Amino acid sequence: MRYQFYYWPEIQGRGEFVRLALEGAGADYDDVAREQRGMQQMLAIMRGDEKRPPFAPPFLKAGRLTIAQVANILFWLGPGLKLAPEGEAGRLWLHQLQLTVTDFVKEVHDTHHPLGPALYYEDAKPEAKRYTQNFLKERAPKYLGYFETALSRSGGPWLLGRKLTYGDLSMFQLIEGLRYAFPNGAKRIERKLRGLVGVHDRVAERKNIAAYLSSDRRIPFNESGIFRRYGELDE
Amino acid sequence: MRYQFYYWPEIQGRGEFVRLALEGAGADYDDVAREQRGMQQMLAIMRGDEKRPPFAPPFLKAGRLTIAQVANILFWLGPGLKLAPEGEAGRLWLHQLQLTVTDFVKEVHDTHHPLGPALYYEDAKPEAKRYTQNFLKERAPKYLGYFETALSRSGGPWLLGRKLTYGDLSMFQLIEGLRYAFPNGAKRIERKLRGLVGVHDRVAERKNIAAYLSSDRRIPFNESGIFRRYGELDE
Repeated sequence: MRYQFYYWPEIQGRGEFVRLALEGAGADYDDVAREQRGMQQMLAIMRGDEKRPPFAPPFLKAGRLTIAQVANILFWLGPGLKLAPEGEAGRLWLHQLQLTVTDFVKEVHDTHHPLGPALYYEDAKPEAKRYTQNFLKERAPKYLGYFETALSRSGGPWLLGRKLTYGDLSMFQLIEGLRYAFPNGAKRIERKLRGLVGVHDRVAERKNIAAYLSSDRRIPFNESGIFRRYGELDE
Repeated sequence: MRYQFYYWPEIQGRGEFVRLALEGAGADYDDVAREQRGMQQMLAIMRGDEKRPPFAPPFLKAGRLTIAQVANILFWLGPGLKLAPEGEAGRLWLHQLQLTVTDFVKEVHDTHHPLGPALYYEDAKPEAKRYTQNFLKERAPKYLGYFETALSRSGGPWLLGRKLTYGDLSMFQLIEGLRYAFPNGAKRIERKLRGLVGVHDRVAERKNIAAYLSSDRRIPFNESGIFRRYGELDE
């Protein structure tokens, strides 16, 4: 099946967790909004009268199904892409971890937008600093330490055990994003994340992922996405 | 099956969305941490060596399964409690809506904790005011307007159409919570939410829910939960 993926064309953002799964599995997909007139198509769907409208991008179309919310998309895609376990309990566990990734990503976003999306970064800079200080000291180590624990209890080498899942691709993206946004903070935090850093490195070396990362399909990190580099926020 | 539900015993919080589903369906369950020595049990699980540990409460035990994250718990419970549609596409759609509830609830939480959980409300009051101003003006109407649209496109009378789902119970809780936290703001916002207010009212009248709401199993709203009444934040 060929998938139509819809997300803002100039950022990795939340959509990147889905792109990594599609790319990692070598799936057949259109990154619609990056194609000519694609943005208009995406906006037309969002402003249109879908019976089951997405609240926001990303969303995916697969035949007659339109599905939104990153973790929901991955939960649905995972089995078909062979990036999820066979059994129900394993799939729910993977989904649970992905929902915790979602929570973490929201907190990453809030490092530069603690007072909500209506203000520019420049208009809430002192607040961003206060927020990020706690984020780097407490929140990021807590979330990532949790994933490290989950990995170690699975027996490894992957987050769920012997087989790669979309959760590992998300771990790659979290580490990669933190390194971009907070080079110093990430270096300190990573000292206690040996297992996750291993997952990151092995994901980066996989054939499909390596090809994707060196292609122009991988949008570089930038200051419109979730992970932003504002030197003054780092340690 | 008898379920063991684990959540902080003194607040509605995020756990309330699960409690409402269990109560609405008349399910057999223990609200473990509210029972004698229950807190110790909950903390023992969280500090223990579960192979698939929850990041935070709430979590649910059902036989050998331990499952966390509100939307994930509801996704799993829904079919057994007859609070979810039969088909896969409908279940994913309901889950997608519930994940949007999750996002909204996080923003509700941040009205009193915009700079993260490490600070007391009193230590970030001006920031809470700025955050809440935008929350009431833009964010709450956007989220709730989206649910109103979803309801109207389903044909009603319930969020997904002819049958009640756990999504309706969540709509009840959102309206109820906003009325508690922001009586003035809620009054204004509700003017454009005729459908949702109807769902709220019909949920409140259902036999199991009415019995629950008037029992001491329903913890009153308070200033330790998600929806808090701080008069200075309201309109």
